[in-house]
Amino acid sequence: MSQRVLRNDTGYVAHLVLNSPENFNALSVEMIADLSVALAAIGEDESIRAVILSGVGKAFSAGHDLRQMQAARGEADGGSAAYQALFEACARMMQLIPALPQPVIAQVQGIATAAGCQLVASCDLAVAAEGTRFGVNGVNIGLFCSTPMVALSRAVPPKAAFEMLTTGEFIDAARARELGLINRVVPADQLADAAMEMAQLIASKLPAAVRMGKQAFYRQLQLGLGDAYGSAGGTMCENMMLPDTDEGITAFLEKRKPNWA
Amino acid sequence: MSQRVLRNDTGYVAHLVLNSPENFNALSVEMIADLSVALAAIGEDESIRAVILSGVGKAFSAGHDLRQMQAARGEADGGSAAYQALFEACARMMQLIPALPQPVIAQVQGIATAAGCQLVASCDLAVAAEGTRFGVNGVNIGLFCSTPMVALSRAVPPKAAFEMLTTGEFIDAARARELGLINRVVPADQLADAAMEMAQLIASKLPAAVRMGKQAFYRQLQLGLGDAYGSAGGTMCENMMLPDTDEGITAFLEKRKPNWA
Amino acid sequence: MSQRVLRNDTGYVAHLVLNSPENFNALSVEMIADLSVALAAIGEDESIRAVILSGVGKAFSAGHDLRQMQAARGEADGGSAAYQALFEACARMMQLIPALPQPVIAQVQGIATAAGCQLVASCDLAVAAEGTRFGVNGVNIGLFCSTPMVALSRAVPPKAAFEMLTTGEFIDAARARELGLINRVVPADQLADAAMEMAQLIASKLPAAVRMGKQAFYRQLQLGLGDAYGSAGGTMCENMMLPDTDEGITAFLEKRKPNWA
Repeated sequence: MSQRVLRNDTGYVAHLVLNSPENFNALSVEMIADLSVALAAIGEDESIRAVILSGVGKAFSAGHDLRQMQAARGEADGGSAAYQALFEACARMMQLIPALPQPVIAQVQGIATAAGCQLVASCDLAVAAEGTRFGVNGVNIGLFCSTPMVALSRAVPPKAAFEMLTTGEFIDAARARELGLINRVVPADQLADAAMEMAQLIASKLPAAVRMGKQAFYRQLQLGLGDAYGSAGGTMCENMMLPDTDEGITAFLEKRKPNWA
Repeated sequence: MSQRVLRNDTGYVAHLVLNSPENFNALSVEMIADLSVALAAIGEDESIRAVILSGVGKAFSAGHDLRQMQAARGEADGGSAAYQALFEACARMMQLIPALPQPVIAQVQGIATAAGCQLVASCDLAVAAEGTRFGVNGVNIGLFCSTPMVALSRAVPPKAAFEMLTTGEFIDAARARELGLINRVVPADQLADAAMEMAQLIASKLPAAVRMGKQAFYRQLQLGLGDAYGSAGGTMCENMMLPDTDEGITAFLEKRKPNWA
Repeated sequence: MSQRVLRNDTGYVAHLVLNSPENFNALSVEMIADLSVALAAIGEDESIRAVILSGVGKAFSAGHDLRQMQAARGEADGGSAAYQALFEACARMMQLIPALPQPVIAQVQGIATAAGCQLVASCDLAVAAEGTRFGVNGVNIGLFCSTPMVALSRAVPPKAAFEMLTTGEFIDAARARELGLINRVVPADQLADAAMEMAQLIASKLPAAVRMGKQAFYRQLQLGLGDAYGSAGGTMCENMMLPDTDEGITAFLEKRKPNWA
């Protein structure tokens, strides 16, 4: 039996791979569980400084596993409890990503639709191949992408999100970058290198500073301006007291590379 | 006497038309009242699935009716009560649009200024003709567009909104799309078709899913991430339990069109 | 001894100049204090209607004064109290800008990094020379730009902010405009003129309306939609009751220039 989520580490970079190409990396109950476990393990792994998340095959991910969801209709409650559990587990997994100490980069090719598009929006960063298409097109089959829109509408302007949600139409990678859904667009044959380059660039920074900073980023985003400054100011002080930050600044002033622990 | 707000239905699409070209579709007390009534009626009309809002003449709308506002200065309180009533009625009308069950598309030509620009920003979606200009230029005559900025600053980045508000300068349709104020820009002679195409595309979706989704969209936008997922997850479960959604997903899996009720 | 912050007034426009080119206009304790005093004085000065903020030399500002910060490590507490005081004073200064009655325009050339980029993001408006580069690159030396990100992440989409913060990479002026960090990009030799033109345009408006409007802008941004309309509606009424607004609207209707007091 092949694993649904592969993990390959390259130095400080963990690379998680959705490995279910036969159903376009559908976010089944099992895939969500496996991905949650893999993310949680990375969260505990102090040797990892950046994460890449990609998918095998023609799609990054096409969203929920519709066959599995339809099968649950045979249950006594018509599937109600199963759906509730599914969407809760999925929302927890999506929220694991910003809560993870390490930055997570989506490496996206083919299509990213519905919860697959939500997964891209939930990552801290995203790199996509030219030709990639993004959509929250559940509305086409009568299932509005209500949970995907939580992540999407926090990444792009509201009218752009609303259009994707109600028309079911796709946007291309260039428009996705313009809107803020992704960070970089590269030719398909350079995609893996571009994601790894970004991951290694982040992994070359002082890990404690990146961890502190990522946590502070999402915390302050939810606060008013004054409270955000109070929160971020505390992080700056804590960061300054790290011996490695002392060394980093000293090295910069002496025009040499830092010798970090 | 001609009607201030016309309504033409085409199938599932209601088309509201601001019909006061002699004053550039000014949002007078009467226009606001008539538009509020028309919107409320659509909200009660289960046969309508999408709405287009356009204006007759050279302008989509040039904002409030300045002559009417000046006339109120002759009242005992200098117009104070009239202005309060006007801005309250206008704000209620603007908020009716996101609260309406059906998506509302602004079809914009000529100019959309002050409360006219607010009306575009308040619609869920917007399509504009090339050459359309958008402004919140009340500052030019000493009346800062404070209520228009509520909608504008929720649609575009803050510095862009601030520039429009304090300089009184216009932006063109291409910049409006880049900023997120509108969704599409088309040649003037294709404007009506483009708006109708978008409306009919939305009207072709399962109405219950679109209604549920639109309501969920604005509700979750005002919440923190965890609460937003709680809210949207409930909507997803409810959506899944619709018989038509069962049929929609089944049809998709069977590669056929859904037979919706 | 040269002054760290110069002020030159041109009519109704105050021009503050960071004048410490030898350290790229570092935001030292003294620079923050002087800039705070200068801003507060402008806030009290009813003759000023718009403010330009620029820097002398090759950089707009390269952020905090790292040499000064490192010197504080010799204190008994390792610098902890000094850093807390520094970040608090800096955050107060940054928040003075949106709180100032007059719009503040950053006139940016060369580089704007770390707290220098935060200063651009904190201004109400920004004009930059072609070739200007923006970064929050403290992460490169082990000090994540946690306080700069408060302003940055309120100006640009989250994924774009996160990329700048964790990779330490710069963006150019065109991308900064696309993202919403700045308003205009002009050739370097037209920068001063472009900033002054924008300032004088704003200064030509009714000052009371601009002041009211700026205050209302930041207040409503922090509120939910209904409360925002309540707040902004009150401002509109107050604005309408100004005699100069009466004159401004009357003049517009009579197709003449207003005679403002």
